[in-house]
Amino acid sequence: MANSKYSYVKSFEVDEKILPQVWIVVRLDGRCFSKFAEEHKLQKPNDERCLRLMEHSARKVLETFDECFFAYGQSDEFSFVLRKQTNIFNRRKSKILTCIVSLFTSAFVFYWKTFFNDVEMKYPPSFDGRVILYPSDQTLRDYLSWRQVDCHVNNQYNTCFWLLVQSGATPKEAYETLKGTYSDFKNELLFQKFGINYSHIEERFRKGSTLFKKPREDLVNPSKTVFEIVLTHEDIIKSEFWNKHSDLLSS
Amino acid sequence: MANSKYSYVKSFEVDEKILPQVWIVVRLDGRCFSKFAEEHKLQKPNDERCLRLMEHSARKVLETFDECFFAYGQSDEFSFVLRKQTNIFNRRKSKILTCIVSLFTSAFVFYWKTFFNDVEMKYPPSFDGRVILYPSDQTLRDYLSWRQVDCHVNNQYNTCFWLLVQSGATPKEAYETLKGTYSDFKNELLFQKFGINYSHIEERFRKGSTLFKKPREDLVNPSKTVFEIVLTHEDIIKSEFWNKHSDLLSS
Amino acid sequence: MANSKYSYVKSFEVDEKILPQVWIVVRLDGRCFSKFAEEHKLQKPNDERCLRLMEHSARKVLETFDECFFAYGQSDEFSFVLRKQTNIFNRRKSKILTCIVSLFTSAFVFYWKTFFNDVEMKYPPSFDGRVILYPSDQTLRDYLSWRQVDCHVNNQYNTCFWLLVQSGATPKEAYETLKGTYSDFKNELLFQKFGINYSHIEERFRKGSTLFKKPREDLVNPSKTVFEIVLTHEDIIKSEFWNKHSDLLSS
Amino acid sequence: MANSKYSYVKSFEVDEKILPQVWIVVRLDGRCFSKFAEEHKLQKPNDERCLRLMEHSARKVLETFDECFFAYGQSDEFSFVLRKQTNIFNRRKSKILTCIVSLFTSAFVFYWKTFFNDVEMKYPPSFDGRVILYPSDQTLRDYLSWRQVDCHVNNQYNTCFWLLVQSGATPKEAYETLKGTYSDFKNELLFQKFGINYSHIEERFRKGSTLFKKPREDLVNPSKTVFEIVLTHEDIIKSEFWNKHSDLLSS
Repeated sequence: MANSKYSYVKSFEVDEKILPQVWIVVRLDGRCFSKFAEEHKLQKPNDERCLRLMEHSARKVLETFDECFFAYGQSDEFSFVLRKQTNIFNRRKSKILTCIVSLFTSAFVFYWKTFFNDVEMKYPPSFDGRVILYPSDQTLRDYLSWRQVDCHVNNQYNTCFWLLVQSGATPKEAYETLKGTYSDFKNELLFQKFGINYSHIEERFRKGSTLFKKPREDLVNPSKTVFEIVLTHEDIIKSEFWNKHSDLLSS
Repeated sequence: MANSKYSYVKSFEVDEKILPQVWIVVRLDGRCFSKFAEEHKLQKPNDERCLRLMEHSARKVLETFDECFFAYGQSDEFSFVLRKQTNIFNRRKSKILTCIVSLFTSAFVFYWKTFFNDVEMKYPPSFDGRVILYPSDQTLRDYLSWRQVDCHVNNQYNTCFWLLVQSGATPKEAYETLKGTYSDFKNELLFQKFGINYSHIEERFRKGSTLFKKPREDLVNPSKTVFEIVLTHEDIIKSEFWNKHSDLLSS
Repeated sequence: MANSKYSYVKSFEVDEKILPQVWIVVRLDGRCFSKFAEEHKLQKPNDERCLRLMEHSARKVLETFDECFFAYGQSDEFSFVLRKQTNIFNRRKSKILTCIVSLFTSAFVFYWKTFFNDVEMKYPPSFDGRVILYPSDQTLRDYLSWRQVDCHVNNQYNTCFWLLVQSGATPKEAYETLKGTYSDFKNELLFQKFGINYSHIEERFRKGSTLFKKPREDLVNPSKTVFEIVLTHEDIIKSEFWNKHSDLLSS
Repeated sequence: MANSKYSYVKSFEVDEKILPQVWIVVRLDGRCFSKFAEEHKLQKPNDERCLRLMEHSARKVLETFDECFFAYGQSDEFSFVLRKQTNIFNRRKSKILTCIVSLFTSAFVFYWKTFFNDVEMKYPPSFDGRVILYPSDQTLRDYLSWRQVDCHVNNQYNTCFWLLVQSGATPKEAYETLKGTYSDFKNELLFQKFGINYSHIEERFRKGSTLFKKPREDLVNPSKTVFEIVLTHEDIIKSEFWNKHSDLLSS
């Protein structure tokens, strides 16, 4: 067969497999999204349409991959968690990584008009991604806490920054005002100067977006468990959330 | 800073770097594309609109990444070659892989309507991808030859198969007719039964699609070299192509 | 500096790091040890001198590397376990692997005469090794159980095999007698034919060799914990051992 | 079978394979060899007995592994090169690495008394090791040049340093005298102060030790090629050596 002379090159392919029984996280980030945000006049500090589109794209990933049961997103990033025991794609790392990143990207472009109706997408955006492994429930939860703290810190800063700018400060002045300040200072600033109680700001902006699969009885076939995908903007740092949904981290 | 308690989780991130001075190939493949082809009534054995959309998406990858100088595609797959000496993204494997796969996917959805005008895309398609390394020019060329031989073998088979089906055979009958047959048999079949000279079939179908960067003098600034992206459907197995474009594999 | 022209080659070195917070096992195996056993007329089915030399070499590894707290060996293999939290050598995989394999090998040759006095070592023996990662206490314990079951199965087989041979059977006949038989059959054979109660055979042969670090108060400085290395031939499959030494798997 | 309950743990083993058709280098280094040198009163700046023992241990590696055709050593390090095309151990990285490091270590201890006769080895020394891959002849040669330049630079420095110390300087004074000086200065110092022409110093010390396999006709069976292992202390940076032994880098 004509192919055989060259098919030795297949031996250069490597299928790195992920260690069994560790939590698999795929995190993706928008590439050059500040430029993308500007070109499409996204609202500052948060564009709800864009966040909803991100959530919807993440939902498509959860719908498509049974083994992906949890996702957390904020700003232009999203993290997907696959069950510790999953054998999806034989745990081949590149396959898992690219399937999730590609589907998310595809959904983002495909559903754009659903969330942005009149705003035309000007060019194809893209996302990069990476796989991260967590060997224990605690380290996985700490990872998710890390992202949610990041969401809070960035959102508080950006809320202050853009309110200062919108009220007449130059970006440089706003930057100088906030440089090195603590959380308390920013809360005071929001309240004193702009009459805003930070804790009343939309939870989507303060807490990010969590999607997870919740088991329920199948109405048609009661012996079967089906999963519905729930979207929430709760605190996922405290144990309360995980106690309420104790099936999430159990094997 | 609130973040620090959790930021230890960052130490679980691994940035695998690609060995210096080897050719880097990223190959992506359509996921479940037979279903996608059916749902969108793509033409058999080849849908020119889809191939042109694939080529256009590949072009976007070459335009975006300076270091990606060559691409070869056929059917629902595309391979991208990055310069041996490239230091793009510090040669981080996951970053290179996901950036290319994500951008290609995004372009495929974004430009769909340009090539399919009236055909609505029904759901977001996706691609998986992998990185393959080739240490020498010879092994890289053998890889590309392997893909072009694959294009030929599949296209010849599919051309026969679908002509048989279109002329009344059941898929099972067509399959049985072709099972285990050689290239010569298929050429005869095409000629005797359908009056088709295989070598007159469109080159795009028989040879696949090659895109590469060709240097030329910048008309405005003659001391500068600019690159134009050339699309061709030539034979890339024989040395002729590589001799004609001898700069491609030189460092 | 003269070196600089070539020092770029250092960039080809890769220091793969082991995922944090997983148990690290290094298992080493004798290379071509049946030939080595024959050349040095080691006793069959077990040579106590050789097992004691293996144990002593393992002890040197535990003495040298603080973070290596447990070892299990049988026949010509030994497994070393490093603490989940260890940061030894920055968790560089090749460094950890080769340091342990090299030191064990060195000790094996160095202490040979202590255990084999009159038997001259004829040529330098060697060991290969590999790193295996276990993310949870359960998987680590299952690994060790796997090795101890292997010890039992092999020892029972070999005991029967060599008794048959020593009592006049050819190796082929002994092999045929034992082929496909179960544990019960072998126990009966030992008892009926050779008057041996398998459970009375030396524990070192039946259970292999476990070395671990046991904390105790430093007599000189009572606020300090020192570790003594304990050698035992117990069952490490059942929980009893692990309950008795509950500090071993706790962080 | 009793084993099966635990044998799932085998799935945690990973056999990383080395990319085909790249040069494989295994470099090993003495662990804590300054302490070892002191404890065994090795001569400064070079102990010929130790260098010869290193060479002899390297020779054992070349004798044992057909595919290992070249080795270069200096001080307490040795680099082994395996043929680009080798399929030894299926190119499994850990296996290749540990077999070479373990055999070298074993030989070092085993042959100690041959080279050190009256000097007792006090404790088992060990070596760490790593695998480095070079995709082209040029990068491999540059690697070897890097090591030989390193040999020269260190030997010249150490020769000066120990002569200064032996002639009455404190180590600190010797260090200060040499700090930041160039090759020329050191050559002058050796000549002016100690009457030593650096280029007359033993080649073993200045150039390190190269071992390689040289093909020759088998006297008994002229149609067969046998290899003899040649030891040399030549310059391996210039092309002369490689031209003279042009078979070494040819496939």
